[in-house]
Amino acid sequence: MTQAPERRKDRKSCAFMPDHASMRRINAKRVLVGEPLDTARLGETLLPKRLALPIFCSDPLSSVAYATEEILLILALGGVALLHLTWYAAAAIVFLLVVVIASYRQTCHAYPGGGGAYVVSAENLGPTAALTAASALLVDYVMTVAVSVVSGVSAITSAIPSLSHHEVALSVGFVVLLTLMNLRGVRESGRVFAIPTYGFVLVIYIMFACAAVRLATGDTIRAESAHLPITAESTYTGLALVLLAMRAFASGCTALTGVEAISNGVPAFQKPKAKNAANTLAAMGVLSVTMFVGITALAMSYQVHVAEDPTELGLPPGTPMSTALAQIGRATFGSWHFLFYLLQAVTAGVLILAANTAFNGFPMLASILAKDRYAPRQLYNRGDRLVYSNGVVLLALAAIALIIAFDAELTRLIQLYIIGVFVSFTLSQSGMVRHWRKELASPATAREERVHIHRRLAINAVGASLTALVLVIVLITKFTHGAWLVVIAMPLLFLGMKGVRRHYDQVARQVAVAPGTRPRKPARHHVLVLVASVHAPTLKALGYAQALRADTLTAVTVAADEADAARLREDWAEHDPGLPLKILHSPYREVVGPILAYVQELAADPSTDMLSVVIPEYVVGNWWEQPLHNQNALRLKARLLFMPGVAVIDVPYRLESAKAAERERRDAAQQ
Amino acid sequence: MTQAPERRKDRKSCAFMPDHASMRRINAKRVLVGEPLDTARLGETLLPKRLALPIFCSDPLSSVAYATEEILLILALGGVALLHLTWYAAAAIVFLLVVVIASYRQTCHAYPGGGGAYVVSAENLGPTAALTAASALLVDYVMTVAVSVVSGVSAITSAIPSLSHHEVALSVGFVVLLTLMNLRGVRESGRVFAIPTYGFVLVIYIMFACAAVRLATGDTIRAESAHLPITAESTYTGLALVLLAMRAFASGCTALTGVEAISNGVPAFQKPKAKNAANTLAAMGVLSVTMFVGITALAMSYQVHVAEDPTELGLPPGTPMSTALAQIGRATFGSWHFLFYLLQAVTAGVLILAANTAFNGFPMLASILAKDRYAPRQLYNRGDRLVYSNGVVLLALAAIALIIAFDAELTRLIQLYIIGVFVSFTLSQSGMVRHWRKELASPATAREERVHIHRRLAINAVGASLTALVLVIVLITKFTHGAWLVVIAMPLLFLGMKGVRRHYDQVARQVAVAPGTRPRKPARHHVLVLVASVHAPTLKALGYAQALRADTLTAVTVAADEADAARLREDWAEHDPGLPLKILHSPYREVVGPILAYVQELAADPSTDMLSVVIPEYVVGNWWEQPLHNQNALRLKARLLFMPGVAVIDVPYRLESAKAAERERRDAAQQ
Repeated sequence: MTQAPERRKDRKSCAFMPDHASMRRINAKRVLVGEPLDTARLGETLLPKRLALPIFCSDPLSSVAYATEEILLILALGGVALLHLTWYAAAAIVFLLVVVIASYRQTCHAYPGGGGAYVVSAENLGPTAALTAASALLVDYVMTVAVSVVSGVSAITSAIPSLSHHEVALSVGFVVLLTLMNLRGVRESGRVFAIPTYGFVLVIYIMFACAAVRLATGDTIRAESAHLPITAESTYTGLALVLLAMRAFASGCTALTGVEAISNGVPAFQKPKAKNAANTLAAMGVLSVTMFVGITALAMSYQVHVAEDPTELGLPPGTPMSTALAQIGRATFGSWHFLFYLLQAVTAGVLILAANTAFNGFPMLASILAKDRYAPRQLYNRGDRLVYSNGVVLLALAAIALIIAFDAELTRLIQLYIIGVFVSFTLSQSGMVRHWRKELASPATAREERVHIHRRLAINAVGASLTALVLVIVLITKFTHGAWLVVIAMPLLFLGMKGVRRHYDQVARQVAVAPGTRPRKPARHHVLVLVASVHAPTLKALGYAQALRADTLTAVTVAADEADAARLREDWAEHDPGLPLKILHSPYREVVGPILAYVQELAADPSTDMLSVVIPEYVVGNWWEQPLHNQNALRLKARLLFMPGVAVIDVPYRLESAKAAERERRDAAQQ
Repeated sequence: MTQAPERRKDRKSCAFMPDHASMRRINAKRVLVGEPLDTARLGETLLPKRLALPIFCSDPLSSVAYATEEILLILALGGVALLHLTWYAAAAIVFLLVVVIASYRQTCHAYPGGGGAYVVSAENLGPTAALTAASALLVDYVMTVAVSVVSGVSAITSAIPSLSHHEVALSVGFVVLLTLMNLRGVRESGRVFAIPTYGFVLVIYIMFACAAVRLATGDTIRAESAHLPITAESTYTGLALVLLAMRAFASGCTALTGVEAISNGVPAFQKPKAKNAANTLAAMGVLSVTMFVGITALAMSYQVHVAEDPTELGLPPGTPMSTALAQIGRATFGSWHFLFYLLQAVTAGVLILAANTAFNGFPMLASILAKDRYAPRQLYNRGDRLVYSNGVVLLALAAIALIIAFDAELTRLIQLYIIGVFVSFTLSQSGMVRHWRKELASPATAREERVHIHRRLAINAVGASLTALVLVIVLITKFTHGAWLVVIAMPLLFLGMKGVRRHYDQVARQVAVAPGTRPRKPARHHVLVLVASVHAPTLKALGYAQALRADTLTAVTVAADEADAARLREDWAEHDPGLPLKILHSPYREVVGPILAYVQELAADPSTDMLSVVIPEYVVGNWWEQPLHNQNALRLKARLLFMPGVAVIDVPYRLESAKAAERERRDAAQQ
């Protein structure tokens, strides 16, 4: 009882508890990620269209920065003669873009609560389609981060060639930066998004205007690469030519990525939500199409030549190459260097913002999957700053792995990108077709409505067929160029999620109890206290164990020899704890084995109904003190968990360093 | 009570408990490391001299395989003209070897219980000297592994040049092999050691005989490298020449490494222990000196030219080079390829055995240090197979790190080797000097004994002075060539060990209790049961908690909203556990924060004397199931440990997979 005042003081000193033996880590985390947020701050702000456009459309708008180049890169394999096919590929992509946008406008109206591919598939096509869509979307989010960041970095290296050959480090750096921003819980602040997105659109239009004026006044503008020869990989004729053209088209389809974002975010719009969302989608379509067509026209007019490898253009290996957009900008703006650098800056900015959209989408989808028990439950937990921290970290790790594995080469990454996008497009549009058919089948639908629904059905049916067709084209033309990785990864994700769900279902069955089952109180409770030697932590644990009022109470220890045992017995008698001490002999002081064997023997005794093992544990405040203590306790605990009928009781004894760490933590929190 | 038979069966099924969620790892471990051994097998077998020699002397005998080469490599920096200095270096080394062996023979007699540098320093020079010796020895053991294995691998690549450029992989492979062998607990089996060690000595002597016959019959034998020019790095004259010669001598001192092993192992000898050990040491000295002198003579006679880099010999970069010993062997045996390959095989064999001696010495020394509380206690624990597993793994990791960092280049590693050896020699010999002075000072020493003791004192004094002198030479000549690393590492180890001891001493003071202090039984015991939802693990935990007969018993849960709360209340009522359920509201289901705050509030209440938090925990049998469960429980537990007055009770609920894993484990154990 004499210790009471000391203990009371400790209690008062305990503010928010730090993680076990990791004060330093936590303090570093606070600096990087900020202080925990209050849940009340998670209010939603409804977005006007002018802010919704940059927030939801940075991904689809930014993809025009690389779509044209990807078409040119593929056609360059067939030599200069094939570059005119760019027009056909671009035309097909514009048509596809219009159809897909028209289709998604339907989704905005039909799902004002948010119509992501997972939701639409789940509701209309069942869980298998929904999980397929989820696999596609998860892959897609990872690819969005990797592709957008790498593309943003190549906009930077095009402006500052001395940074080339550091693409991997720069890309990983940006992913880490985005991760930290998102762990801090940056809310999608419209203004932050508006500047680079509108800036990008504006600078592109200024570039178009400049080019129009200069070309109209009779200037001949040529890209820096116009004079470079393109070495054809081989001569493409007949079917090979068709396949190459389709492959170029498939690569250009990256222009469509991210179109679905608005249909997903309808609830964030101001009222009338669906109408505003659909109109924003239309505006985005107009911007995308005009920018894509303009950039492609200028690339053709300026004779931009690009190749994956500088040697194909007759340049020495390792020569830094500019992106097609950078070449167009440099040629258009000529000596107005400021505008060129501005173009590169806003391009990099909008691309990195595009990556950021995935940092919102992925953790959200992962948390929905976790809620539906298709993913580990900790993806459903919000972190200190009310973001799904685990999802953010998972996405970043996957994107970084891809960037490193593919050496930050955009063209190789693009091959993996489009499959996921078109799988989710196809499923989402097919889901919409089923949705309208259900509406038509319902007797509640009014006759005058049916005409509209037939029209909507037709639009989504065209969308579904077209995106399915493109998916087949993408699969055929890109499979051997890297897409096989996605074709493997998606089913693995699918099976993984199924497996997680099956596991949770099995566990749910195993832990289910019949209605009315009441807890069974064990008849006889035995308590065993582990004793290393007789010191304060042991005495605390013994006092605690006595308070349990068990049927039997025993202390157990391990001795190497008779001298050791005699010393322990003497110490025991000295402090007279009032319970017997069982001494186990272990000639080489192997602690875990003998104690486990003894616990097992006790647990197997028919008179034991419930056995508790009390372990006095040292609590330290510094990570480096951790390996100096508790190793036997940790090993024992891990093994005792597997013993039926045994519970483990940790009685912590906080050493000075643990108290100091706590005080430090409290002082830091008060500042 | 209806569950009783089921539970009884489980109990019977539980044999030896596996580590938590790591069955696969354990099974793999069993295959590699073997089944656990019984402590009774740790019997000691006394060694006859003919077996003690190979066991204790593989390290010093094997070092003649590279000592000559290291002298030549240094002198080559000054060009061919300086190679004749090899004779002087070799002569000095032979003299030093004789003195050191004579000194250690004294140690064998004075410390029949084993006279390692740590023991002798501790007894005669105090703890600081002992810790210095320990730091030197620990570094020395790591270097023995790295140098011997790398040297063994170069014997292999000299015979099979196609394996060169894989030195790092081969060296790491051998270290891993030695680690697994030692984790299996291979006892120092004399026979295994005898074959390569005696084989090495025998083949070297056969080589000497061959060479003698061929040279006597007028043959002119030249090494394959005799015609290669040596590009002098610069011209050495005056002091620079003296320093180069001293550096060559210092490199050649590797021939002395491992000499102290016998003095350490006296207790393992048959009786008369000390005499047998001293005689074995003398035999080892004769073998070492003759082999070293012979190899050096042949290297000079054959004009072996070696250099660190093939370009210094006028060869293209990357040309595989043979060791000096391999060149001598190839030149001597000529077309008798069999003998050459045999020489390389026994050389590699004896060198790898030499590395193995460190695998015995390091963990043993680490366990002595741990017993003296200078190292973490788990280094004192024997593993399943009665070896100090942690020490073995630590040594292997350090050696692998060195091999990788130094690219498996012997000459760069050698620079780090000799300092530790001579620090421990000097301390050990100085300790012996003090030992004899104490004997002289003791009035119990008989007059006729004093004459002998004066002679012994003189021998050890010469040994101590000479090894101290060599230490200074090594420090001066090798500091800038890499030895600075050891000069940093040793004090760090020293301070680390001091720090560990200080920590353990502080902890001992913190946990000390006054004599007669009895355990204080808490007056009021409150129990809190964490409830996620009402299922079998929860009911089990509730039943358990009721058996604790606490003063108050409360269940606590977290609900996201009112609907959630209502459902929980309904479930609670349905199963009627007979205690109140406290529902905490957390809008985003953040579990850890609200529960911690609630526990803290309860713990701070003056009426709470002791608070136990009961956590129902799922136990799973597969590692991949682990991240799917218990994440909140683990985070909570880690933080609760820091709360004063709180104990944590784990009530495990074993899922089917845990039971299956246990059955598998038991079946595997029965086979």
